Amino acid sequence: MAEKITPREQDFSQWYQDVVLQARLADYSPVKGCMVIRPNGYSIWEQIQQDLDRRIKATGARNAYFPLLIPESFLKKEAEHVEGFAPQCAVVTYAGAKDLEEKLVVRPTSETIINSMFAKWIQSYRDLPMMINQWANVVRWEMRTRLFLRTTEFLWQEGHTCHATADEAEEEARKMLNVYADFAEEILAMPVLRGMKSESEKFAGALRTYCIEAMMQDKKALQAGTSHNLSTNFAQAFDTVFLDKDGKQKTVHQTSWGVSTRLIGGMIMTHSDDKGLVLPPRLASTHVVIVPILSNASKKAEVLAAAEALARSIREAAEGQKLPYTLGVSVDQDETKQPGWKFHEYELIGIPIRIEIGPRDLEKGQVVMTRRDIGVKEMLSLTAVPQKVVQELDTMQRVLLEKARAFRDQNTFEISDYADFQKKIEEPGGFFAASWCQSKICEAKVKEETKATIRCLPMGPDYQSIEASGHCLGCGEQKSLVRAIFARSY
Amino acid sequence: MAEKITPREQDFSQWYQDVVLQARLADYSPVKGCMVIRPNGYSIWEQIQQDLDRRIKATGARNAYFPLLIPESFLKKEAEHVEGFAPQCAVVTYAGAKDLEEKLVVRPTSETIINSMFAKWIQSYRDLPMMINQWANVVRWEMRTRLFLRTTEFLWQEGHTCHATADEAEEEARKMLNVYADFAEEILAMPVLRGMKSESEKFAGALRTYCIEAMMQDKKALQAGTSHNLSTNFAQAFDTVFLDKDGKQKTVHQTSWGVSTRLIGGMIMTHSDDKGLVLPPRLASTHVVIVPILSNASKKAEVLAAAEALARSIREAAEGQKLPYTLGVSVDQDETKQPGWKFHEYELIGIPIRIEIGPRDLEKGQVVMTRRDIGVKEMLSLTAVPQKVVQELDTMQRVLLEKARAFRDQNTFEISDYADFQKKIEEPGGFFAASWCQSKICEAKVKEETKATIRCLPMGPDYQSIEASGHCLGCGEQKSLVRAIFARSY
Repeated sequence: MAEKITPREQDFSQWYQDVVLQARLADYSPVKGCMVIRPNGYSIWEQIQQDLDRRIKATGARNAYFPLLIPESFLKKEAEHVEGFAPQCAVVTYAGAKDLEEKLVVRPTSETIINSMFAKWIQSYRDLPMMINQWANVVRWEMRTRLFLRTTEFLWQEGHTCHATADEAEEEARKMLNVYADFAEEILAMPVLRGMKSESEKFAGALRTYCIEAMMQDKKALQAGTSHNLSTNFAQAFDTVFLDKDGKQKTVHQTSWGVSTRLIGGMIMTHSDDKGLVLPPRLASTHVVIVPILSNASKKAEVLAAAEALARSIREAAEGQKLPYTLGVSVDQDETKQPGWKFHEYELIGIPIRIEIGPRDLEKGQVVMTRRDIGVKEMLSLTAVPQKVVQELDTMQRVLLEKARAFRDQNTFEISDYADFQKKIEEPGGFFAASWCQSKICEAKVKEETKATIRCLPMGPDYQSIEASGHCLGCGEQKSLVRAIFARSY
Repeated sequence: MAEKITPREQDFSQWYQDVVLQARLADYSPVKGCMVIRPNGYSIWEQIQQDLDRRIKATGARNAYFPLLIPESFLKKEAEHVEGFAPQCAVVTYAGAKDLEEKLVVRPTSETIINSMFAKWIQSYRDLPMMINQWANVVRWEMRTRLFLRTTEFLWQEGHTCHATADEAEEEARKMLNVYADFAEEILAMPVLRGMKSESEKFAGALRTYCIEAMMQDKKALQAGTSHNLSTNFAQAFDTVFLDKDGKQKTVHQTSWGVSTRLIGGMIMTHSDDKGLVLPPRLASTHVVIVPILSNASKKAEVLAAAEALARSIREAAEGQKLPYTLGVSVDQDETKQPGWKFHEYELIGIPIRIEIGPRDLEKGQVVMTRRDIGVKEMLSLTAVPQKVVQELDTMQRVLLEKARAFRDQNTFEISDYADFQKKIEEPGGFFAASWCQSKICEAKVKEETKATIRCLPMGPDYQSIEASGHCLGCGEQKSLVRAIFARSY
């Protein structure tokens, strides 16, 4: 418990690992590249699932579950797909005490296995759109892993939809990007750029990949969610066809979209500080912890009773307001730990609001309240607490988003000169908006020389990439220019 | 849609498959032994998860997530465990384009990988009890599979707990069995026997396995959940030790407990009929479907408006009553389908209550309501509907349990003569309570000769098996007799 968190200034990467391990969000497992998500971390994933699941269902998709193991031949049916994923596959070759006739790949993603079922289920235009979502684990063999951000196994949701026309599929892919962006900002309090991936960064098998990109406190980018227009690429490979109204057999147009436990890592690197986790209230299950000061034996019963009564009145106030979340309040009755230890612990694990109540406070009918993100102690009358708690949680959620957005905006720069960019990507770092000639050669050169990649092509109002003027950041070319965001990334 | 469900009388096994496939609950996948859980089936799993998760958390357990892939050496650390599971393992031998140094087993259950973490997290008695639950997929290679009941991959929850004493672990194992039994009866409306497994039927690695057993409509038994007292078997293998209050290092005592998607199969075989799925209301997401009769063009708008208004008033009535579930109501506005088709469809997929409303009904201020399980049309005044719906759902939930319990009790027999048992296990079949001498030889003989196994030793008030008199069903022995339930099973 006396472990120290490395300050962000000193070593951001070590700070991140310290927060994750010390707040008991996740741990390294004995299986290479795989993490264990501990209860403090998993409860955040549960909050994410609950809210996002509601948003996904509101679009008309329904949840289902498809096999973990995919015949190797399925992966090979879509050429780009297998090329992209084969190097990362974990393969079952032996099962039920026998060598398998056909090897089975542990799903790295489920486009292929799901298409094999879509092909069976879809006959006519009446079956469309077909919109499926799956909450599942996936495995992608990774060389360098980092808790939550990049692990061999991770948890995610993957949506898969089929549509009668290309326009509908395109509309769906964009719609889901917006669902993710709204979710990231409203629930994770993590501001995101909405954009399109360049050809070389798109999903293996997609026509087009949309993405949301967030800026971490070290000014690096994190891809936080993707939504793909798959066109008919997988449908052709699996013969997912339908009889249209006009009596003609046509191939369905598809999308897929997903976010993962990576979001937890992004949220941590957006808000947390040198004292530990700063958790947006909408991701908390316990929002308020009341710490009764029990050192005075003769007053103990009275203080405890007051703490419990306060907890009840906070819960009642929350219920009366019909909040969009269940406000969790706990009273820490543990007498084997000192208040100072508890304060440190609750800061570390990111409880949004802490309330201290002691005998002398009680006499004066007041308590001390501290919001995790600002850390300022505030004296409050007991009766004012329930209302104030609800307000402060709301404020904290909003302020975290505003603060992160201001940070991102302050660290986003327009740039046109390559030498200048080479300097600034080192120091101060950040997001760099520049013109790009759309050539892969140029993109690769920038990546090799600066370790910065095109995070996205921000989208204009018509969801196309934005035409730009001047000259390409990489090669100086003056033709076919679009606006691109360059940054180093996770 | 014109597909016919095979009647239960004709072929129970085919009937089951027809219901599952035609109600679109699950489907066969191209991966041997693996099923796809379709949205109609997955929504039942979501209801199960939601309710059971609440019950599990109420016992103090918290959710977490552990790796899918387990080093082969871990499985081998507990001798009985590896012997039991090795023949069923799927093994990853190749990953990231390389042969693995150590093979990884796709988890068939997680005692070993979780113990490797418990050993790291637990230091002192202050860390106990440690109570973890995981919602996950597991893989057990099966020769003969059946949708939901026995599949190579299935979804489940697995609880794993550590305690300071043997007594506490035993108490936890029993407590969780009761949680499962109450859940099965209150939510699945599936009556269960609570008992203990015989030595030969217990979990590989456990000291003692408790189980709940249900009777299906073909009078065969289904094991619906298990709770194991693991003693220190895994803890010793993984050195999961703690420093106790007395300053001594001790090995933790453990339990594990799980239920799976198999419950969905059990629920179907308990309640459903020759028209399709009969779903206990507590497992439904849509409880009421309103079918407006739209054939009269001039009245269409009026009928639709009345149907929507009725749906609203049902929802409001449900909200006002603070039901323990969210009452789902939908209005079927689809004009491409005939009412007759719709009635058939909603019977097939098991919507608990159907309401028809046509122009003539509307004039008279009434509707026709049909409860899925009894199938009797009832005329009701519009204003009475909301209250009646809530009541009927409650009644249906209760009646399904009562009916299933009566069926089980009518088909449970006391038996003492082996020749008589050999005849009766064929016809009429059922559960047979008999005395057993506790010998494995005798148990194996009965199994071989009659295909009946000891489903459980029912528990007395002290949770011990019940001493019996007379003579052993198998060998006629008159010593060490306990009461046992013999039945054929899934």
